Amino acid sequence: MKWLNALLIFLPIAVFLEITHGNPTLIFISACLAILPLAGIMGNATEQLAVRAGSTVGGLLNATFGNATELIIAFFALQAGKLEVVKASIIGSILGNLLLVMGLAVFLGGLKYKEQKFNLKSASTIASLLTISLIALSIPTIFDLSARAVAPELVAQLDVNLSDAAAVVLIIMYVAYILFTLRTHKDILSTSDDEGTHDEHDGPLWSVPVAVGVLAAATIGVAFMSEFLVGTLEAATASLGLTEFFVGLILIPIIGNAAEHAAAVMFALRNKMDLSMTISLGSTVQVALLVAPLLVLAGLIVGKPMNLVVTPLELIAIGAAVLIGNSVVRDGETNWLEGVLLLGVYAILAFAVFFYPVA
Amino acid sequence: MKWLNALLIFLPIAVFLEITHGNPTLIFISACLAILPLAGIMGNATEQLAVRAGSTVGGLLNATFGNATELIIAFFALQAGKLEVVKASIIGSILGNLLLVMGLAVFLGGLKYKEQKFNLKSASTIASLLTISLIALSIPTIFDLSARAVAPELVAQLDVNLSDAAAVVLIIMYVAYILFTLRTHKDILSTSDDEGTHDEHDGPLWSVPVAVGVLAAATIGVAFMSEFLVGTLEAATASLGLTEFFVGLILIPIIGNAAEHAAAVMFALRNKMDLSMTISLGSTVQVALLVAPLLVLAGLIVGKPMNLVVTPLELIAIGAAVLIGNSVVRDGETNWLEGVLLLGVYAILAFAVFFYPVA
Amino acid sequence: MKWLNALLIFLPIAVFLEITHGNPTLIFISACLAILPLAGIMGNATEQLAVRAGSTVGGLLNATFGNATELIIAFFALQAGKLEVVKASIIGSILGNLLLVMGLAVFLGGLKYKEQKFNLKSASTIASLLTISLIALSIPTIFDLSARAVAPELVAQLDVNLSDAAAVVLIIMYVAYILFTLRTHKDILSTSDDEGTHDEHDGPLWSVPVAVGVLAAATIGVAFMSEFLVGTLEAATASLGLTEFFVGLILIPIIGNAAEHAAAVMFALRNKMDLSMTISLGSTVQVALLVAPLLVLAGLIVGKPMNLVVTPLELIAIGAAVLIGNSVVRDGETNWLEGVLLLGVYAILAFAVFFYPVA
Repeated sequence: MKWLNALLIFLPIAVFLEITHGNPTLIFISACLAILPLAGIMGNATEQLAVRAGSTVGGLLNATFGNATELIIAFFALQAGKLEVVKASIIGSILGNLLLVMGLAVFLGGLKYKEQKFNLKSASTIASLLTISLIALSIPTIFDLSARAVAPELVAQLDVNLSDAAAVVLIIMYVAYILFTLRTHKDILSTSDDEGTHDEHDGPLWSVPVAVGVLAAATIGVAFMSEFLVGTLEAATASLGLTEFFVGLILIPIIGNAAEHAAAVMFALRNKMDLSMTISLGSTVQVALLVAPLLVLAGLIVGKPMNLVVTPLELIAIGAAVLIGNSVVRDGETNWLEGVLLLGVYAILAFAVFFYPVA
Repeated sequence: MKWLNALLIFLPIAVFLEITHGNPTLIFISACLAILPLAGIMGNATEQLAVRAGSTVGGLLNATFGNATELIIAFFALQAGKLEVVKASIIGSILGNLLLVMGLAVFLGGLKYKEQKFNLKSASTIASLLTISLIALSIPTIFDLSARAVAPELVAQLDVNLSDAAAVVLIIMYVAYILFTLRTHKDILSTSDDEGTHDEHDGPLWSVPVAVGVLAAATIGVAFMSEFLVGTLEAATASLGLTEFFVGLILIPIIGNAAEHAAAVMFALRNKMDLSMTISLGSTVQVALLVAPLLVLAGLIVGKPMNLVVTPLELIAIGAAVLIGNSVVRDGETNWLEGVLLLGVYAILAFAVFFYPVA
Repeated sequence: MKWLNALLIFLPIAVFLEITHGNPTLIFISACLAILPLAGIMGNATEQLAVRAGSTVGGLLNATFGNATELIIAFFALQAGKLEVVKASIIGSILGNLLLVMGLAVFLGGLKYKEQKFNLKSASTIASLLTISLIALSIPTIFDLSARAVAPELVAQLDVNLSDAAAVVLIIMYVAYILFTLRTHKDILSTSDDEGTHDEHDGPLWSVPVAVGVLAAATIGVAFMSEFLVGTLEAATASLGLTEFFVGLILIPIIGNAAEHAAAVMFALRNKMDLSMTISLGSTVQVALLVAPLLVLAGLIVGKPMNLVVTPLELIAIGAAVLIGNSVVRDGETNWLEGVLLLGVYAILAFAVFFYPVA
């Protein structure tokens, strides 16, 4: 991923343009490009700390900071009151991880290996959690549609109440899942890939202060770039002919996840499907069960009450992704055709977003 | 369950209050509390007869009278024209059995045993029947929404026609399921738990006349209490600050199933998951494929034409319950995390019902 | 199937009536009856060519011409601008193959054999493709509902754009599936039934010119009869008291598939479930992933722009069929109860179509 670091040049460029009140579209593009390597560096530093910390705490670190970039971008969008962008980026992250990343990994891995297997118990657990992700968005959305017909003047507050309550339940489920994975059922879920994990760390191990310092610096970098990105969002989308819907659903998730995407594909090409699946499916579950509810609760705190109500098109998109994702994962084996199916569903959804009219 | 019988004291209290035209809220509460032990006694007496009758007829008895309490309560609500309460109690019974009862059993059993297994063939059959339950409610509901836009003046009659036809098909499916379970595929579905079943009967076996007498007496008791409960429903919900939606979806199912709930958890704690699943899943299937269609046909007979059209929130609730239920059951194994997921979905749905505005 | 050929007498009758401007209802009925044996002959001739061509090209021939009759009927309906009939016949074909044909085969086969097994890998692939079929109709339909609220004047064009794009993606998926089945994963999907396939050809093998000639003649026959059928559709449905909805959803699929239906049941009765499943499920997948998108693209060419937007009732019907179909197929085994469930869902859907009010 070293070539990606060349994009760090856009970090000072974005800062310079912002200070000199430069063209917002250029600031937007520079910030996007600068986030790509920063997200990769954050991931690396987290992993370095994880290796040092031993498997349980390390797993916890990875599990908790894995989607930090998306959380930071979404948080700045939330603070700017752009709730539709926040929600679109949550949906887009789920679609991107489940369909695009997993699809590419399964397809490219499948071209090289006839069948790729992964731990069936783990797959079955993940399938249940994907189903929970779908349910967690369906109930508030249908509640909103139904309650709106009964009491239109109350529905905004009721939506927030239900979403806050659901967020707490989701976080409890996520904590339970982490306990299950790292503690009570660790042995059942472990795989032959696990021994190989450490070999994947190319290069030397960093010392703890270095890793913490790098993580802090990269996090601050992401935070500034995210603020620039959100601040110039409106002007940039207008001048680039993009809708905020498209930016949230497609662009932000790709920027926030690029480094992870590359890793998932690389592991699939090395026939380490358990690691590949952990990245793509683990990320999906984390976004739905941790990032989304954290944003709902953050909204409560910063006074921008957010809910988990999504548009019907977003709901059907998640439904489609979870259905086909479950169908592919269920038997603990993948082949190239399943990769085509995942990518095909992503393509149809991307067309739907592309053709969707602006209000 | 013997301490439950102490609640029988509320039977004469309810009768006394009713005769003296006492406070309706007190009658409502007394009737609710009196039904709890009566339902348990009905279950016991049915089981006593079942043991005497041999496995096939006994299984049939258990399968048919297992949800008698709910059927009786719902029948009185139907006769009183409270069709929304009837339908809510059907939905609530499915949610309660599939999410709350099974969730508690799987969670508590899972804390004691790392993994609990049950007959996979049986699980696969049950998964298909759960799917049928969802379909049986979806089609009339979407039919209603679509037909309403085309011919609003005809839709009430068409809904009843479709629901009557669907009810007959569902009962045929249920009879086929009973034939399959007790006759043609009995050997495949039997489990190691089965031998243990008889040991679960604590205490001596009753003689047939005693069992029939007890069953008759408890049924009459439930019938009277149900009439009291329905008769005081409106006044009681108003004074207790509850909605009829909440009473139907949450309260009645808990009252009607309390004894079964306790048994499902007890069997899970003894690692007899096949028995535990038979109670929770068997009940779910029975409510959807037998109780609901019987009520539709009963409505035809008593001149209160009922349909299987439910609200969108009820439909998504059943969809969520069936999706996660299927996901948990499918592999023939459970663990504590799956219990958390079932209970979590129940909690989110309960919040949605709680926050739902009154029309 | 030889007695079916007696119906060929209706071919000259239909032509005679058409030339003499006879009663449209009689022309409609004659054309329907004449298509039944013609479709069977097309199937036979295709199979004869397939045997000659060797397994890969033969499989390709079978896969591509398997639903030629339906494609021809639908094409004439498309050219006549009867887009609702075209779409209803696509939906009806999926429902008929998945529920009625597979249901009958599984039920009747299951009465004879306690359990019938088929290739699990193949079943798992088919289950994923059924899911894709559902997704391919869901996304355009929900897109239409959502976009209509935002930009009602643009939605017709946007629906066509999205459906065209989706059609191309679906055809790519179908080509990938054929490559997967006949080329890259042929060995994994092959079954013990395969050796027996050739024995199923009763009677002598035809020479290639004979087979090509018969195929051409039968295709022309189907083409003429289809034009008659579509031309008299309106008058005939009016005089027979049927709706176009019913004709498209129930009648045309039965006419177009009668020969295949008989074959699927016959193979199930011989305990050759892999062949039986290939016919019913293969047909389902072919209609959704090849016939439907080809019709969308054909509509573009003949200037009758068609989309993949269906009615809510049609969508829930496909959803119900795919859900229960997946649930039955998933474990690679069938029994008579599963046949009852498939037929039961078909019955409920048929009642819904029957009771559906005319606009």
